[in-house]
Formats: sequence, structure tokens, C-alpha cells
Amino acid sequence: MQIPIPSFVDVLDFIGTFAFAISGIRWASAKQFDLFGAYVVGVATAIGGGTIRDLMLGVTPIWMLNPMYLICSACALVWVILFGKTIINQQGTFFIFDSIGLALFTVVGVEKTLTLGFPLWVAIIMGTITGAAGGVLRDIFINEIPLIFRKEIYALACVVGGLCYGLCEMIGLDLVVVQSISGVSVFLVRILAVKYHLCLPILKEQTDTN
Amino acid sequence: MQIPIPSFVDVLDFIGTFAFAISGIRWASAKQFDLFGAYVVGVATAIGGGTIRDLMLGVTPIWMLNPMYLICSACALVWVILFGKTIINQQGTFFIFDSIGLALFTVVGVEKTLTLGFPLWVAIIMGTITGAAGGVLRDIFINEIPLIFRKEIYALACVVGGLCYGLCEMIGLDLVVVQSISGVSVFLVRILAVKYHLCLPILKEQTDTN
Amino acid sequence: MQIPIPSFVDVLDFIGTFAFAISGIRWASAKQFDLFGAYVVGVATAIGGGTIRDLMLGVTPIWMLNPMYLICSACALVWVILFGKTIINQQGTFFIFDSIGLALFTVVGVEKTLTLGFPLWVAIIMGTITGAAGGVLRDIFINEIPLIFRKEIYALACVVGGLCYGLCEMIGLDLVVVQSISGVSVFLVRILAVKYHLCLPILKEQTDTN
Repeated sequence: MQIPIPSFVDVLDFIGTFAFAISGIRWASAKQFDLFGAYVVGVATAIGGGTIRDLMLGVTPIWMLNPMYLICSACALVWVILFGKTIINQQGTFFIFDSIGLALFTVVGVEKTLTLGFPLWVAIIMGTITGAAGGVLRDIFINEIPLIFRKEIYALACVVGGLCYGLCEMIGLDLVVVQSISGVSVFLVRILAVKYHLCLPILKEQTDTN
Repeated sequence: MQIPIPSFVDVLDFIGTFAFAISGIRWASAKQFDLFGAYVVGVATAIGGGTIRDLMLGVTPIWMLNPMYLICSACALVWVILFGKTIINQQGTFFIFDSIGLALFTVVGVEKTLTLGFPLWVAIIMGTITGAAGGVLRDIFINEIPLIFRKEIYALACVVGGLCYGLCEMIGLDLVVVQSISGVSVFLVRILAVKYHLCLPILKEQTDTN
Repeated sequence: MQIPIPSFVDVLDFIGTFAFAISGIRWASAKQFDLFGAYVVGVATAIGGGTIRDLMLGVTPIWMLNPMYLICSACALVWVILFGKTIINQQGTFFIFDSIGLALFTVVGVEKTLTLGFPLWVAIIMGTITGAAGGVLRDIFINEIPLIFRKEIYALACVVGGLCYGLCEMIGLDLVVVQSISGVSVFLVRILAVKYHLCLPILKEQTDTN
């Protein structure tokens, strides 16, 4: 099989995939999954969002066209096996990687959707799905309530990034500038959300929910 | 973006979407979801069934072609925030709305599938998926066993509605009459099921299920 | 509707569907699902993997083109209702059926993917999804951590079968021979895994998994 030479965006994409997969694999290992299960959860975390997006857009899921996504996830598995104990000390690094992945996945999702002719509001949702749905899949697999529905702002960073994308494009900025601003905004919102523990308000529980 | 003038069926559709979203948002709030999580669960409950149907039928999910579904879900979120405490007193109203939604979603699902050239038995299943799969998605997101697998007759109402659709069409009735009878039958089965606590028999547990 | 005359592979396919559906229905009954819920879980177990595969391949899910899959699942439901208590004594038979199903589903998945022009590595994944994803869906529906992520080698048998398929094809063997060797290899790996309790190593838990 032929592997194309990776561009700068590809490299960022693979870093994001690696970081997302690490997150899935570590959660799976906390639930005593075996190696295969951990790999599947890692893959689902890394490419689940993009797969759901591509199915909705009616195109072939991206990972079926380029083996790099599965290879990156396999590298993540090897990494956790080899350096599992020290990963806790690399927490900060992986948080940065994860945020880079979130930013890039969002921009890729928004761009792909716009290219296919959908309006901006669909593109923003697809960007958010690309960035955040993998984590939801991960939490369903490990049988937990999805983290992003209750913790620090995560998916909202994707929404902000998507809005920035639309605004910058409307102004008429260059595509590379539009993408950079959009990505940086996702990254910043996410970093600030975790640094200052920014959460969305929680809906008050009602006594009877039938 | 251009929003088409809603027909009578559209209005019923939006009422159903609103009622389904309310149900999802209330369950999410019972699980301490934040506003974003509650909105996602509401949206998934409202349009999850139609999305799964459209993916299987090989067409673009309906909510990607008309922003009203997401707007209705957003209205539902605002409604729960503003009137959360009094919703319990509106239980009856929402049950009626929810049943209207179930009826309409079923009819829409059956019709869309037949229009695309699939046989009736596929259409009945797609009608049932349109009506009931959103609730299954909701329960997966809040990490509960899907309610419709264990409580009063729900999805079976959709099956009955789909069968009525097929029978009425076979007789050669007018499309509007066919759809009305089908929708009313779903509505009635559901109302009667809840009024008289009609449940399907439960399979007896076996001791060893490996 | 017209039902085509089943070939030998079709018969194996229906046996596999029956066995997979039995497994889903029995787990559902252990969770006090009603008849409808049990049927849905049975169907999801039996055809869930093929459906996910077909959605990713961009073709119409196989069960929408042939009612036999739903009929086989209905037969499985009747079987559990009638012979529920004695199924425990048929454990061995169902394990053999289940392994036949796993083998056949894998081969069907690999072949279908290759026929559509995808490379072997995609085909191996699709074979594995065809064989193993139904069980994951089943476990999500009954709100348990997917069994195949933690117990005896299951999905890995599909991967081995997919690799055998690729190897045999590379050598230039006849299609029937390729498929037979591939299927038998899945069957053997699965049987041996259960007989000798072969498990993959479990990833060591880390203390902090945020």
C-alpha cells in the first residue's frame, strides 16, 4: 500500500490521533481491558469522531483511506505498555497534545463539511463531532457517563472554533489564516477552561423524571 | 440560510421534536449533566432515530438540511431552564406531545422508506427506528438500560402504526388517510398502553448466560 | 416479497445469525428485558456488525435486502421462549454455532470489502467488525462493559482469519479454498481460545487516569 508523504497538517493530525488514542487506552487499562480491548478503545477515541462525521456527510471514513490513523493508535498502545507508569508525569505534555488534537480535528471537520457544500452551522456541528464524539464513544465503551457532558468546557471549545472559522471566512481572510485562528481559538478556550476550571452551569435535578 | 414556510406536518414534527428533546434534557438534568451535555442528550433523543434511519437509507440526515430541529431542541433547553420546576405539573401535556411525536415520527419514517423504494417490512422497521431509537440513544448517553426494552409498550406502537400504514395502502386509501390512520393508531396504542400499564411479557431469567 | 433460494453459505449465514441472536436474547432475558427488548438485542447482536460494516462501506445494510436475518432472529426468540430452560444443556452446541457464525461473518466481511476495492488491511478490520461488533452493541444495550474487551480471545480470531485470507489469496489459491481456510482458522482460534482459556494480557491499571 502506498503511504503519501505527510504534510505539516498531517503531522499535527497524527499527533492528535496519538494523544486521543493514549487517552482511550489509559481509560481502558483502568477498567482492566485486555490489549485488544484497549487498542479498540484507543482507536475509537482517536477516529470515532471523524468516522461519525464522515458517515453523516456520506463519504468514506477517513481512516479507511490512510492506514496512518491505525498505526498512530498502535504506537500509542506500545507507548502505554512501555511507559505506562511514567505517563502520569507526562500529564502536562499529553494535555497539550490532546488540545492540539482537539483544535486540529475541529478545523479539519469544519473545512471538510464546508468543502462538501454544507452551510456553516452544519460545519460547526461536524467540527464539534470530529473533536468531541470520539471521547463520547470511549466513555460508552468503558460504560461511564460521557465525561464531556459534565466536566470542564470541551466540546464548547470546538463550537467557538467553528464560529471563529465562519467569522474569519466572512471577513475574507486567507484560508490558512482562517484555519490558524480557528484552531488557536479551540486550543486557547480548552487550555483556559482547564486552567481556571471553567464549567458550564449544571441543570438542576427534578424529582420526577418520568 | 433559508428556512422554508412550515406546513401542518412540519408543525407537528417540530412539536414532536420539542417534546422528545424535553424528555432527553430532563433525564440529563437528573444525571447532573451541564447545559451542553443536556442539549446534546436532548438533540440525540429528538433526532437520533431519524439520523440512524437516514444513515441506513443512505441519505443525508434530515437535521443537516433544516436547522429547525436543532432550534426546537434549543427551545426545549430554554424551556427546561425557565420552567423546570413546573414541568412536573405539565406531565400530562408532555406525555401527549411525546405521543404525537412518536406517531408523527413513525409515519414520516415509514413514508420516507417506501418513497425510496424499499419494501413494507423495511419501512415498518424504519418507522420504528425513527420513533424509538432516539430514546435508546438517550439512555445509552445517560448510562442506563434503555427504558423501552422494559417498560410499557412503546416501540410496538410504531410497529402497529407501520402495519396499519401497509394495510390501508393495500386497500387503496388516499395517502393523507393512510398517514392519518397510521399516526392515530400509534398514538392510541401508546396512550392505551400507558393508561392500562400494558407491558409485554418479560423473558424468564436463566441462571447461566455465558 | 421474493425470497431467493439459499445456497450453502446462506445456510451457514442463517445458522450464525440464529446463534448470535440466541446469545443476545439470553443476555437480555438475564436483564429482565421484555419480549420486544429481547428481540431487538438479539437482532442487534446478529446483524449489528454487518450493519456497521455496510454503513462504513457505503452500501445498504444487508438485512434491508433480505428478510431472512430478521426471521432467523425471530426464530431464535421463539426458541428461547420454548426451550429457555434446556438451553443451558445445549451450551456446547450453541458455542459451536456461535463459532461457526463468527467464522462465516468474518469471511463474508473480508470478501465484501475486497470486492468493493478496498485494500486488505481495511478488509481485515471489516471482517473483524462483522464478526465482533454485534456483541459490543449487545453489551452496550444491556449496559455492561463489552465482554470481548476482557475475556477469551474473540475478535483476534477474526483478525487471524483475515490475515489467512490475505495470505492464501496472495499465494493464488482458489477463492473457495481461500475462504474455507480463512473460516476454519477463525473457528479453530476461537475453539482453542475457549478450551485453553487463552486471554490477551491485561494492561496494568494506572492510578490517575484523568
